[in-house]
Amino acid sequence: MFSNEDLHQKIADSLKQLPVYNEPAGLYEPISYTLDQGGKRLRPLLALISTRMFGGNPDKALPAATAIEIFHNFTLLHDDIIDQAPLRRGRDTVYKKWNINTAILSGDTMFAIAFGQLSKSDPEKLPDLMKVFTQTAVEVCEGQQYDIDFEESDQVNISGYINMIRLKTAVLLAASLKIGAIIAGADEEDCEKIYLFGENLGIAFQLQDDLLDAFGDEGVFGKKTGGDIVANKKTYLYLKALKSAGSEDGERLKALYSKRNHNDEEKVAEVLEIFTRNNIKSFTENTILDYYSVAMKNLSEIKLTDEVKAPLLLLAEGMLKRKY
Amino acid sequence: MFSNEDLHQKIADSLKQLPVYNEPAGLYEPISYTLDQGGKRLRPLLALISTRMFGGNPDKALPAATAIEIFHNFTLLHDDIIDQAPLRRGRDTVYKKWNINTAILSGDTMFAIAFGQLSKSDPEKLPDLMKVFTQTAVEVCEGQQYDIDFEESDQVNISGYINMIRLKTAVLLAASLKIGAIIAGADEEDCEKIYLFGENLGIAFQLQDDLLDAFGDEGVFGKKTGGDIVANKKTYLYLKALKSAGSEDGERLKALYSKRNHNDEEKVAEVLEIFTRNNIKSFTENTILDYYSVAMKNLSEIKLTDEVKAPLLLLAEGMLKRKY
Repeated sequence: MFSNEDLHQKIADSLKQLPVYNEPAGLYEPISYTLDQGGKRLRPLLALISTRMFGGNPDKALPAATAIEIFHNFTLLHDDIIDQAPLRRGRDTVYKKWNINTAILSGDTMFAIAFGQLSKSDPEKLPDLMKVFTQTAVEVCEGQQYDIDFEESDQVNISGYINMIRLKTAVLLAASLKIGAIIAGADEEDCEKIYLFGENLGIAFQLQDDLLDAFGDEGVFGKKTGGDIVANKKTYLYLKALKSAGSEDGERLKALYSKRNHNDEEKVAEVLEIFTRNNIKSFTENTILDYYSVAMKNLSEIKLTDEVKAPLLLLAEGMLKRKY
Repeated sequence: MFSNEDLHQKIADSLKQLPVYNEPAGLYEPISYTLDQGGKRLRPLLALISTRMFGGNPDKALPAATAIEIFHNFTLLHDDIIDQAPLRRGRDTVYKKWNINTAILSGDTMFAIAFGQLSKSDPEKLPDLMKVFTQTAVEVCEGQQYDIDFEESDQVNISGYINMIRLKTAVLLAASLKIGAIIAGADEEDCEKIYLFGENLGIAFQLQDDLLDAFGDEGVFGKKTGGDIVANKKTYLYLKALKSAGSEDGERLKALYSKRNHNDEEKVAEVLEIFTRNNIKSFTENTILDYYSVAMKNLSEIKLTDEVKAPLLLLAEGMLKRKY
């Protein structure tokens, strides 16, 4: 029986064995730089844990898990261009360290390498894996496009926002779990349940991230809070405040989000005041709990013992119980 | 028996049935715009012709052929950003008509859709198809990276240049043919031969393109000649001239290619004079013929009758016999 740490190590080893240290260096150096950055490897870990949970051999899921991690990092690489993000995990992003063209092309190559890894999976499972993987890839792109669209739009509502984070974040977590289940030979019903579990958990996870960005303890959260507010991001908190606050707070919030060149600190402080006055923190916590509860229900319906489900449950709890 | 025109129509129909007319419009409009542009559909046609030649049903190759065409158009979309190309087939490129972010993300989505199409192929063939497709995708990216590198480098030699065009152009033509052969159930040896045929034909095709860019008849060639010279592209013609010309012509050529802000017309005229004085046109024609001859040898070694090979041979001749 492999521990979660064993699985994490397997992923790290698999990424180290990739054929990405070749010529031309201008293409492969940014790829190595990206994949060497570490990180939690949450998505491949979910795939391996899912395979193990459904009684499969995690080694058989390693190519697909590796594919998922490479794909995820490819999306970050291109997203960083689009979002003009200078830093990721404390280091220069690829487009900053090199340039936009390098980031485009290295990302494309990572996408191709991801599919190359996926194709090393059990041939009998490959058609199903491809179906999940390609649909998810398309949906992640759709999520990113909605995120871009929402920046310019004043028509964003809460359900649209939830759909955006579902596509941009949750479906890849869900697909990771489903891919692990397919490889273990889980039946279709369980594959669907574990997908829904991941999707609902993923939405809760992203809402939690939004909440921490506003109300997190910077020491624990690991990055400066208020970033979404400074960037005028129409997160769940903002949309909920617009919907539930009175017209005075609502108008003030819109005004604060419509202009740039505010004094950032004052702006964050005032927005947080409006959020607090309108109980946005507890509204958001309740919504997170709603999605988390549905996820728990999805997990409970899977035809396995609680004992076998325990490691995944622990990981899910860990994902959500970040302090703020 | 399907004619080439039938096959062309099948490709057009397949592209029209793609699920790319969805929301978000910001993502899918550029994809429809790109795929609606027409073009020769050379690569998917090669795949279908190959399947037919090896006795398979072209309909079975249609998902893979569609995948190839979408992939090819995705690479063009990202290449146009990298090359800052404002026009393609007489229309604004996606990054010009929309913006760089849209072009990145729509391209990524096309890449995912391409794999989605490929995965509709016969499940038994899918692992082999994936192997060819992903390796080819990586190689095309490598080719584009070498092309970028060569712009800045003064160390480019002829064999490096041939390798670059092999990766950037030839391997996708080769892979298209091999994918068609795999789907028809051709044996491994024939799959390899048809690949080599495509690779050598592809190199000849690109060298021909270089030649036409310098010496083509603008009316027949369909675009303004001299573009490579104005852009200081280190094509086969330039590299061959540097190698075979005396030091005086060589130094002058380097000087002409090192500066911008030349009078373009005068520069093109002087470069063509140097090319002509050093027989570069006939050197290039001979090299094209060399690659074409190897391609013909590859084709001749395939275990099929000449009659069955005739349509592919005709297409290959058509690709090379563009007048200049």
